Amino acid sequence: MMTKLVLAAACVSLCQGCVSAQASRGTAGAAAPKVVLIIGDGMDGQQITIARHYLVGERGWLTVDEMPVRSAVRFETVAEEDPSLPEYVPDSANTATSMAAGIVTSAGRIGTTAGTDQDVVSIMELAAAAGLRTGIVTTASVTDATPAAFVAHVNWRLCEGPRGMVASNAANRVFAVDCAPDLKANGGKGSIAEQIAASRLDVVLGGGMGQFAQIAEGETTKTVADLAAANGFTLARTAAELAALPRTSKVLGLFAPGTMPVKWRGVGDAKAEHVRHVDGRVVLPEPFTCEANPEFAPSPKLVDMTRAALEHLDGRGFMLMVESASIDKQSHFRRPCGQIGELGQLDETLRLVLDYARQHPETLVLVTADHSQAAQLLPEHSVLANAASPGYFARLRTPEGALLGVGYSTNDSTVQEDHTGGDVPLLASGPGAQSIPATIRQRDIFGLLTRHLGLTAPRE
Amino acid sequence: MMTKLVLAAACVSLCQGCVSAQASRGTAGAAAPKVVLIIGDGMDGQQITIARHYLVGERGWLTVDEMPVRSAVRFETVAEEDPSLPEYVPDSANTATSMAAGIVTSAGRIGTTAGTDQDVVSIMELAAAAGLRTGIVTTASVTDATPAAFVAHVNWRLCEGPRGMVASNAANRVFAVDCAPDLKANGGKGSIAEQIAASRLDVVLGGGMGQFAQIAEGETTKTVADLAAANGFTLARTAAELAALPRTSKVLGLFAPGTMPVKWRGVGDAKAEHVRHVDGRVVLPEPFTCEANPEFAPSPKLVDMTRAALEHLDGRGFMLMVESASIDKQSHFRRPCGQIGELGQLDETLRLVLDYARQHPETLVLVTADHSQAAQLLPEHSVLANAASPGYFARLRTPEGALLGVGYSTNDSTVQEDHTGGDVPLLASGPGAQSIPATIRQRDIFGLLTRHLGLTAPRE
Repeated sequence: MMTKLVLAAACVSLCQGCVSAQASRGTAGAAAPKVVLIIGDGMDGQQITIARHYLVGERGWLTVDEMPVRSAVRFETVAEEDPSLPEYVPDSANTATSMAAGIVTSAGRIGTTAGTDQDVVSIMELAAAAGLRTGIVTTASVTDATPAAFVAHVNWRLCEGPRGMVASNAANRVFAVDCAPDLKANGGKGSIAEQIAASRLDVVLGGGMGQFAQIAEGETTKTVADLAAANGFTLARTAAELAALPRTSKVLGLFAPGTMPVKWRGVGDAKAEHVRHVDGRVVLPEPFTCEANPEFAPSPKLVDMTRAALEHLDGRGFMLMVESASIDKQSHFRRPCGQIGELGQLDETLRLVLDYARQHPETLVLVTADHSQAAQLLPEHSVLANAASPGYFARLRTPEGALLGVGYSTNDSTVQEDHTGGDVPLLASGPGAQSIPATIRQRDIFGLLTRHLGLTAPRE
Repeated sequence: MMTKLVLAAACVSLCQGCVSAQASRGTAGAAAPKVVLIIGDGMDGQQITIARHYLVGERGWLTVDEMPVRSAVRFETVAEEDPSLPEYVPDSANTATSMAAGIVTSAGRIGTTAGTDQDVVSIMELAAAAGLRTGIVTTASVTDATPAAFVAHVNWRLCEGPRGMVASNAANRVFAVDCAPDLKANGGKGSIAEQIAASRLDVVLGGGMGQFAQIAEGETTKTVADLAAANGFTLARTAAELAALPRTSKVLGLFAPGTMPVKWRGVGDAKAEHVRHVDGRVVLPEPFTCEANPEFAPSPKLVDMTRAALEHLDGRGFMLMVESASIDKQSHFRRPCGQIGELGQLDETLRLVLDYARQHPETLVLVTADHSQAAQLLPEHSVLANAASPGYFARLRTPEGALLGVGYSTNDSTVQEDHTGGDVPLLASGPGAQSIPATIRQRDIFGLLTRHLGLTAPRE
């Protein structure tokens, strides 16, 4: 909640070349630097391999496979109670904060420092201050952790809307923080939705209408959406409304109450299940294929939202973050078809972005994941006789006619999986991409953004 | 077993620049091209992250992290019964065959084609034929799948020594192949050990004395080691004997009956175990640290063997394959300290190789894994209340004072884990490294080797 801005040293060391880039910062015209940062939430190497086999076959190539430059991203997380101690498995809040602000913080934190709760300036705030356009596109609620960390500053990721500021505190058993210090009544900036409504963002597209429909803190009738409108946002609730908006206005597109429906599901809603043991023998789950999720049809696709965002942002330099959020969420819920479909949405969107970048070669395109996820590509039957996954297991029949095993075994709960802690990929194209080291810290992604956009950030 | 040589198309398409490189092929002197291919068996991104946290801390840098170029390697495997069908999780035999010979084959096969059992020429055979020196270093038995695929041609990876040619056929329940066609009596080339003994390799260092001590097929008193001696190999059985060998001779160093002892183990031989449930509550395993494995001390380390290999091969162009084999084997057996120690051995060896490459800038250094493995970096306790891994789980206390969770849950057997199917890293430095695409097929590694060494292979 504290308003003092803290900047990571990461930016300073990476900001070589700022001087020349600064000359073009914020100027109109084709040469103004542009960044599209595409985040596949939970999109680790296992997820990409699983999706590739299903979407294009073992010998096919995804668009993500054709990016010219690769790095591995090492995330860092610290303990809230003692920020000198590392934690080895992150969440989407602290990892997005690392990318958006160049710092290391504790799990659950959005744009704030571990232990000391200081606000850290984000790339979106820096870009807007420099006259660049800014945008956020996600298939999650726009108040979800990943997009939130690019614009808001709260103690805890569940401080999403006015009601959550109070209700979620009681439910917070996981993180050692709560929303109270962020209430406006306590001198804070309010919920994530209220901070988005008050932000300088030009484009905000995704789910989350449920948060914006709530009465804003301290108001009697005005909703958060009303505050956004007062700040110049035009609201869109359908793909048709989005398409009809004038390209000059600030846009807040909210196409679902919370997370947007995903593109695919298992046939008949099949997902991974426990292997059965009958008369001492393993009985594997029946193979299934993927089908269109009937709830998905009316939604704008990720590629549609991204196209709209590019149209709104074009004409000036900009910073755009695009998230395919439900790769992670569907993997949490042991739904392989869901995660594959959402990775397909990301891949389709990347094609669009690369087409845009070919027309606008001043565009740096980065594709990465925030953290790794539970799903593992397993043998469809174990090499060992009468052995099988002790967790949840699915066998997908791929279009090329083979069986693909997907296992989920990070924990034994019936609720959902945990994250895992392995390095994740960064893929890049555009100016400066070739000079990205082959292994980087996640906070250094912030430095890649500021360097390309010619931004320098205030020092502590 | 068939002697007809088959060459993958992969080489041809990747072999741009062969003409100029060919000019120096096989010539003596500092400029002759050299390759060191380091394979971490099972060394996927999760393994590297786990090892990094323990060996150098969350913010430390392994040598492997400092390599300048990264790619992701997609392995391909086909079904023996129908090679038009993919299998999505490979083994070390077919993946090493892909790297060594540029082809796609079925699990368990060593230097032979799926279904049709044709021998495929390996990079070691090509290099030797072109007058380059060749060497193999491994912490496994030198007859184990990975090194075997660089020199031998058999139906099945367990055709390691004369006795195995018969005995293992009865035990082969996993792969649809056996050793009978490879018996010399049946017109084959004999076991892997016998093929190594008869090979043109200059340096063979690792474990596997047990295979070479067997009476060779068709002999009454001569062992496989005797055949090797007759082919010009000088045998070394200890680090001291290795150090004393003249640098000009062919060297066969066999320092253990089978796999060499690993460097580390859990304190008191601790490894991952099942989480217990007491009175309906999860009781996590006690954290442990790693300690030196007392069986390791007398063995030459991987870095020692590699140093000796470089000394023997130096002075001419060469092709050297170095494998840290027990990253995979220790992960199979749910031993996190074992796998970390062996990744540490690889990292120490890479430092030596990079030092050599600085003195010999004509050296291409590649570091990769053959396939991904079971171990996942998990939260040391689940984010969900009273939930824990359904498989085997360990909590390591890292030197920086935090807890690191490692889970193994590919199957529920008490014997060992399965492999997994995710892409693996390729890291590179040296001539041509910068032009390696960011995503490659595993068989294209063969093309990288032939291109740098200026080799062209016979066509089918």
